[in-house]
Amino acid sequence: MTIPADPPTRCVTVVLFDGFELLDVFGPLEMFGVTGKFRITLLGPTAGPVASAQGPRADADSAYTDAPKPDILLVPGGIGTRSLVNDQAFLAWLADYGTSADYVTSVCTGSAVLAAAGLLDGYWATSNKRSFSWVCEQSSLVNWAPEARWVEDRNRWTSSGVAAGIDMTLAFIAHLHGDDLAYRVADGTEYDWHTNSTWDPFAAKNGLV
Amino acid sequence: MTIPADPPTRCVTVVLFDGFELLDVFGPLEMFGVTGKFRITLLGPTAGPVASAQGPRADADSAYTDAPKPDILLVPGGIGTRSLVNDQAFLAWLADYGTSADYVTSVCTGSAVLAAAGLLDGYWATSNKRSFSWVCEQSSLVNWAPEARWVEDRNRWTSSGVAAGIDMTLAFIAHLHGDDLAYRVADGTEYDWHTNSTWDPFAAKNGLV
Repeated sequence: MTIPADPPTRCVTVVLFDGFELLDVFGPLEMFGVTGKFRITLLGPTAGPVASAQGPRADADSAYTDAPKPDILLVPGGIGTRSLVNDQAFLAWLADYGTSADYVTSVCTGSAVLAAAGLLDGYWATSNKRSFSWVCEQSSLVNWAPEARWVEDRNRWTSSGVAAGIDMTLAFIAHLHGDDLAYRVADGTEYDWHTNSTWDPFAAKNGLV
Repeated sequence: MTIPADPPTRCVTVVLFDGFELLDVFGPLEMFGVTGKFRITLLGPTAGPVASAQGPRADADSAYTDAPKPDILLVPGGIGTRSLVNDQAFLAWLADYGTSADYVTSVCTGSAVLAAAGLLDGYWATSNKRSFSWVCEQSSLVNWAPEARWVEDRNRWTSSGVAAGIDMTLAFIAHLHGDDLAYRVADGTEYDWHTNSTWDPFAAKNGLV
């Protein structure tokens, strides 16, 4: 679906890496994309194909080091985050790059990467509930919320695991452009949007509350 | 997330085309992918990048004409379907290729493409609810269901619009491998699975019932 719109005004820049989780990226990009209000740029270690944790490859528009300034930065999760949190060169680049963004967002274990880069120091944040203890180990300077579909703290938006990124993105679209657009996107994509950021049955299912 | 599993036994083959809808493809592939029970192959007009309706490109493993026999064929929707239903060379290829599949599935307006190729003749099927009248015009030989999250008729599985493909895929995984695996996938991806194929508030929202 496409909602007719004014020319895109903000760029959503996604940091891809080997082993990114497919839905962490393409759930949010579906919602951003159909509004017609955002340009989308995919970054990778180099321009060209980047393999997801599930196998399929996305085509990065630009290498990290050639990336234009981000308006909205999105870091997905996935098994590839396990090595990224120890990649000091990558984390130094991300810390610098993220600081220049208007909004810093993550889905699932993407918040572990943001935390390792210091981009969540002093912020409330959440993450995947099955990997929550590992995520918390990445930084003691983050206020980790164990029960939340997503957390908004100033210009940091972090979601719970995988599918939660879709709910957060719709709330973020509502924050920027109003509830009406977000509901039209949800209805147009036939998505049953969880509008309450405290809805989180997966915290209890994973023994976090 | 990854669920440890036996080696993959079936191949899910996705037909990409210029203007495919991102979530139609990557919602289902997330769910198939995390089970570890399916190999995934992306087809395109040629091998290499294929642009989605929302902009981001996926990297096709193979051209249509070089594609291995599909076990499970998946045709997504998206604005690109509007021209595909009139592309006789493509439809002839799809009709032949789909006939060799064990299962033929679609998300959203992908069912319009299947219908135009004759692959739904005599079957019950559903589609995107906002584009439903256009979809129905593609074939009078299909029993179109206006109110359904997804429809299963023998080896044809068709879903309603965009996000509905995720619910259908989990039901399809349950059909092949049991409910327990499907629930574990939904919980692991923190997805609120609609398990009832007749749940469809979008039919009423679009005046179809």
